[in-house]
This record gives sequence, structure tokens and C-alpha cells, in this order.
Amino acid sequence: MRITELQTLDLRFPTSLSLDGSDAMNPDPDYSAAYVVLKTDAGLEGHGLTFTIGRGNDLVCAAIQLLRPQVVGHALAEFTEDMGGFYRHITSDSQLRWLGPEKGVMHLATAAVINAVWDLWARSQGKPLWKLVVDMTPEELVRCVDFRYLTDALTPEEALEHLRRMAPGKPEREAQLLREGYPAYTTSVGWLGYPDEKIRRLCRQALHQGFTAFKLKVGRSLEDDVRRCRIVREEIGWERHLMVDANQVWDVPQALAWVRQLLPYRPLWVEEPTSPDDILGHLALQKALQGSGTQVATGEHVQNRVVFKQLLQSGAIGFCQIDATRVGGVNENLAILLMAAKFGVPVCPHAGGVGLCEYVQHLSAIDYIAVSGALENRYLEYVDHLHEHFVEPVVLQQARYRLPQRPGYSAEIWPASRQAYRYPDGDYWKSRLGG
Amino acid sequence: MRITELQTLDLRFPTSLSLDGSDAMNPDPDYSAAYVVLKTDAGLEGHGLTFTIGRGNDLVCAAIQLLRPQVVGHALAEFTEDMGGFYRHITSDSQLRWLGPEKGVMHLATAAVINAVWDLWARSQGKPLWKLVVDMTPEELVRCVDFRYLTDALTPEEALEHLRRMAPGKPEREAQLLREGYPAYTTSVGWLGYPDEKIRRLCRQALHQGFTAFKLKVGRSLEDDVRRCRIVREEIGWERHLMVDANQVWDVPQALAWVRQLLPYRPLWVEEPTSPDDILGHLALQKALQGSGTQVATGEHVQNRVVFKQLLQSGAIGFCQIDATRVGGVNENLAILLMAAKFGVPVCPHAGGVGLCEYVQHLSAIDYIAVSGALENRYLEYVDHLHEHFVEPVVLQQARYRLPQRPGYSAEIWPASRQAYRYPDGDYWKSRLGG
Repeated sequence: MRITELQTLDLRFPTSLSLDGSDAMNPDPDYSAAYVVLKTDAGLEGHGLTFTIGRGNDLVCAAIQLLRPQVVGHALAEFTEDMGGFYRHITSDSQLRWLGPEKGVMHLATAAVINAVWDLWARSQGKPLWKLVVDMTPEELVRCVDFRYLTDALTPEEALEHLRRMAPGKPEREAQLLREGYPAYTTSVGWLGYPDEKIRRLCRQALHQGFTAFKLKVGRSLEDDVRRCRIVREEIGWERHLMVDANQVWDVPQALAWVRQLLPYRPLWVEEPTSPDDILGHLALQKALQGSGTQVATGEHVQNRVVFKQLLQSGAIGFCQIDATRVGGVNENLAILLMAAKFGVPVCPHAGGVGLCEYVQHLSAIDYIAVSGALENRYLEYVDHLHEHFVEPVVLQQARYRLPQRPGYSAEIWPASRQAYRYPDGDYWKSRLGG
Repeated sequence: MRITELQTLDLRFPTSLSLDGSDAMNPDPDYSAAYVVLKTDAGLEGHGLTFTIGRGNDLVCAAIQLLRPQVVGHALAEFTEDMGGFYRHITSDSQLRWLGPEKGVMHLATAAVINAVWDLWARSQGKPLWKLVVDMTPEELVRCVDFRYLTDALTPEEALEHLRRMAPGKPEREAQLLREGYPAYTTSVGWLGYPDEKIRRLCRQALHQGFTAFKLKVGRSLEDDVRRCRIVREEIGWERHLMVDANQVWDVPQALAWVRQLLPYRPLWVEEPTSPDDILGHLALQKALQGSGTQVATGEHVQNRVVFKQLLQSGAIGFCQIDATRVGGVNENLAILLMAAKFGVPVCPHAGGVGLCEYVQHLSAIDYIAVSGALENRYLEYVDHLHEHFVEPVVLQQARYRLPQRPGYSAEIWPASRQAYRYPDGDYWKSRLGG
């Protein structure tokens, strides 16, 4: 099977019209997907996407097109027989590497292409992506990872040894996840801008749906944050989890002062307290919070495995929040899962946006079944946005993700949605912008 | 004066046709500039650029156009009366920020725009950029910096106090630099791919030109590197400086093993031993090399002030290699100069490429006259490429940069060169690609 064409689509959903998704750093996101379709001479397609929040989604589509020579004309088997080499291949055009390396627009583009290739591979094998990966031998899984820049923290040999130890328990864990699903937390109760009464109402709804963990956006007004934390605790009690998320608005000293005021409400984690580039800043906060019951979490803006490596090896984070499209797709996320397992840090993926829940459910399933073997303190983010546009939307039952069953990586968007939300010439945008 | 138009040009120079500029990571760079012209209603223009090495330069131009609404229609005075606020303004479009933040393609674009605004400001004041900045009061200079994410390492108050201490010596240091120039080192002797005899010949030429510091590219073959280091030492003796540059090819353990083999040749620094994102990796290497006389250097790929902050505050680097266009232009480089001064690390800018020598001569002058007040162990990179395309090319005398005298930031490229090397429709490329 040969890849014969790479198409990109700039899809934007007008989420800024409501306050859903607003936080202290991002007041008006239009959830968007730089969307890739790989066509093959076998008729099969691979679909992939990267998530952005609006302006600049065109730039990511243009960056994806720059990767076209890396993919089009190649046989799928060239890639799948050495997936670690495939990652290196995609990220090693030296002129394009200069624009990163492995960060920002080029790396978002890399993620979309890599995810599309994995989707194609999984479809060609007739398996959902998580199943394709958990069925790999330890040797096969390790070969999917490019260990460049990682070997001071994790060698291929260590990874292999770890996976071999985990292998015997895989069938049992897989059966358990198929039976029970993967635990989720909800971010939908506490976007900035929601009035207090709405927060109470949404907490009650979420409790009714079975959620046991609830995240609140913070960082705009300390007084508001204290009141909102109190409200959530009043609604959910003290047996369930509250998390808070500042979306990078603080400097390190300010973060510590602010979070201390929220400690009486016992947040499980404080998410993105400062710049995602500040490994030492996160480490300082994590140390200062030691013993408080609250730990530092970050990841949705962490650019690549090298930064995750440092956050993990230094003990700077208590929760590792991988993102399916910020780093270089499935390959780099496997590297991060392996490092998190080595350093004993629970992985709680970032989701929401558009397509991120669809993606990370696979990664969390891989983490539990094949890599960490643990569910303790692991929750997968859930936000109830835009799932209706997906051919295989996530399914939540009793606040647990049901494992996806269709072949592929679950990010295919319905043709009608692609037609409507293509920017700026899809039906929705034409009527809005032309009106 | 109001900015009325922002034009971008994709300029590419065919440097890959020779082996000039080749290193272990970048075998075939086409030195390129994503070039910006700001037009004003006063007739004055501001020119700025970002350096890339070929493919993807179009992407950076497109990213610059996304910043257009941040600039066009604004009065220059709106920006110059609060340059720190201007930096925040340019980098704070929340939807575009998602694509970074402050890294990769969007940040390269930010640099070009910010540098163009500084060029316009300096021209409007009739001063070269370095003079505009060193004539500022400490208060004015501090106001050019956005301290977001820095205050755990450097507060505005500390910066102010430092600059006040340095202020009395400014006139004397300015007179000295005007008289003597700023010391340079040469990278032209040792690109990868040069035969040994060429290295010898170039060393002799450079010695004759007065150079006292010589950089060699390493990292492809240890055996070759040992031989090449020996050759350079044979030519330059032991009183002058040798530096080595690996352009990120090693993992941390490999870097240490390799560099240990080069220590007998007493390199002053080992540059880019590993991923520019690996703060803790650089720190481990710097610690391991303690007492050897060789220190770790990096910076040309360090994405922003937050990563520089950590490299400096942790003691991970012995030399701080700022780049004029990788981080967000003059503003962010002022922040880095201030932090380097606080932590006592010499700043030795990255240059070469196209326009980088023209840019960083200003930054090193600012560093000496207004910020660090020191020349010890400071050398400005010099590469003899492409200067003929600039209206005010750098002037080297006895291996020292003469301070630029024309108003502005020295990055204006001759209209004829812009016409010839515009990609893909300039005269050069039309004839090469069409032929």
C-alpha cells in the first residue's frame, strides 16, 4: 500500500461565540483542527489532526504541506517496519528542523501527519489504535520510539525490560478496561466566566453522571477563585477530587502565593501554574507544595519529549498531562509514557478541544494495559464539546471512557462537518463572514 | 508617524551549492531571510529579518503576515513609549500564542517584526540601534523588557539597580569600543567537509587577519575531530582560543564521552553538545567538565528568555550565545543580557547566517557599554558570508567589529539583492528553477 496524496483542511468551529472553553489565558478560542487526509493506492485513507484555537490554523496546514515529500510516494510498510525511524525521518529535514527543532508550528504539523499514518496503519490492520499497540511485543513497542536526547533518563534496554515485566498482565488489564472503562474527570463545570449558580448546577449534573473529579479554571481573580473553589467543595464534598488550572498566567513567586490561598480546598493538582518551558520553576513549586496534598501538573503546552524528560527526571511534576497533538504524535507520546512509568508519575492526558478526547482515550488505554499497569490517580480529561462531528465519538458511561472499537485512531470528522466548517469557504463560515 | 504597511519577502541565498555553513546537523543550508519592510506615513521605513536555512522560510513569512494587525495602523509612538508593553502586545494574541507560546515559527516571525520596529525607531531618532539603547536611562531600558516568567530569577528592581551601578562608566566604555572595536572569533576555518589542508590554510589566513579565537565544527566522526583539533592547535598554538561546536548531535552521555577525547586540545567551549531544550542535560555536562578548562555553551536554538533564565540560574552554561532572531528580537535579548550579567555569564552571540553579524554587533555593544561592562571571555562570532547584500555591512578591522554608525539596526538588504534572491520568483531563482 502506497501513500499517494496528502490533503489538508483548515477546520474551525465557532466556540468563541459561547464562553465554553474560556480560561485566564485564552478568552475566546475557536476550537480548530489542521486536518490531514492521506490517500492510498489501496483506497484506504488515514485521517489525522492537530488542535489549535483559531488564527494560525492555516499556518499549521501550510506546515503540514511542507512535510508532504516525507510521506507521499512512500509505501506504508516502509514506515511501519521501523516506526522509530519513521519519526526520525519526519522530523529530520534539516532545513525544516531549523524552524524548531521539534516545537511550535512545525511540531504541531508533525503530529497531524504522524497521527494520520498511525490511523492508516491501524485501519490496515483492522484494529483500533490502542489495540494495535497493546498487541505489540515489548520489542516492537520499543522500536516505535526515537530515543534521541532521552538516553540519560531512559535507554531502549530499560524500556524493554520494563515492558517485559508488564507483559504478562496485559490480557487481564485489557479485559478490565473493556468491562469497566477508563476513569474520566470533567472540566465542564468551571470555565472562567461562568456565574456561580451555573457552576453549582453543572457540579450537580456531573455528580449525577457519576464524576468523582472536577476541574476549575483559576488565575484571573484570587477572590473569585477562593469563592469558586468553596462552591465546588460545597457541591462535591471532600471525598471527591477538585483540580485547579491556571493556564500559565503566573510567575513562579506569584503562583506559590496564589496557590497557597487555595490549599484549604485541597486541590489534587494545580495545572499550568507558569510557563510550560519553566522546568526549574515547576520544580520549585512542586518542592514548595510538598506535603500539602497538592501537586504540580503540566503538559498540554510542553513541546516535546526532551522537556517532559526533564520534568519527570527532576520530579518537577506530580501529574504528567500528555497532549495527543502538541508533541510529535503517537511515537513521542509512547516515549513519554515510558518515561512517566520509569519515574512513577501518573499520566492524566489533556483533552477537550476538538478531537483530543477521541485521541487520548487510546493513549490512556495503552498506558494502563501495556506501560504503567496502574489506574491510581489517573484520570482522563473529559469535555463535552464537538464530539458530534466525529464518525466515532467518545462514549462515556458513568464517567468512564468506553474503549473505542472501530479500526483506526478515531479522529475522522464527518464529511458534512468538514464541508461546513472549512475556513473560510465552508458553508458555515461563508454565510457568517459573507453576511 | 504611523505604520501604514507591512511587506514580507522570502529571500533565499544558494549557500548549499558550496560546503560553507555545513555542520553535523545541517549538511545543506540555503541561508535565508524572512524579510519585513514596515512603511510609514512619514516616508521612513523599518527593515527587519529572521534567519532560516531554506525550506519553511515561506512559512515564517506567512506567520509574519498573521502579526500584521498587531502593527499596521498603529503609531510608532504607541510602541516606543512602552516597549515592554509592545513586546507583550505582539506576543499576546491568544489564538496565535497557542501555536507556541513564544517558540518556533511564530517566535521567529515575532523577532522579524520586533526588529523592524526597533530599526524604524532608531532611524527616526537618527541613531544606530546600539546608541539608541545605551543612551537610555536605566529606567527607560528596564521598561523595554517584559519580565513575565522571569521574576523568580530577576526582578525589574534588581535590573534597575544593576544598570544604575553600570551607568557612570558608559561614556568611557562607549569611547573605548568606538576606538578599538569589539573582539570577534572566526567560524570560517572549520566547517565540516573542509579538507585538512584547507583548514590549515584558513587558519593561517585568519591568524594573519588578527584573529585570536577559532571555532571548529565537530560531531560527525570522533577520529576526524581529534585530527582536526590537532591541526588547528598546530596552526594557532596554545595561547589562542579553540572552540568546538557539535550542533546538537549528541545525547548527554555520548556528548561527555566524545568531548573528553577533545579535552587534550583545550577547547574554550563545547557548543550545542545536545538538544537546546535540555537544561538539565547541559547542567550535567557543565558539572562533569568542571575544572577541565572547557565549558558548555549554547543559545542559537534556545527558544526564549524562559529557557535562557534556567540555563543561567542553574549554572548550566559557561557562555551564553544569544541569537538576534531566534528569540523575540531586541526586547527579549535585553532581558537575556540582564540575566547573564546577574549570573556572571559572558555573552558571546551567535552570528553568521544572513544578517546575524549585522544584528548582534549592536547587541554586544549594548552588553559592554550598558549592561555587563565586561569584555573578558567575550567574543562575537564572525563568518564572512553574504555581507555584500547589506546596505551597511559589518566592518572588521584586526578581527574586531567596528561599531556601526548609520541610523537603524543594520539589516537593510539592497533592493537589487532583494530582487535577485526573492524565492521562487527573483531573477536568480527564476533562472535556476526555470532552467
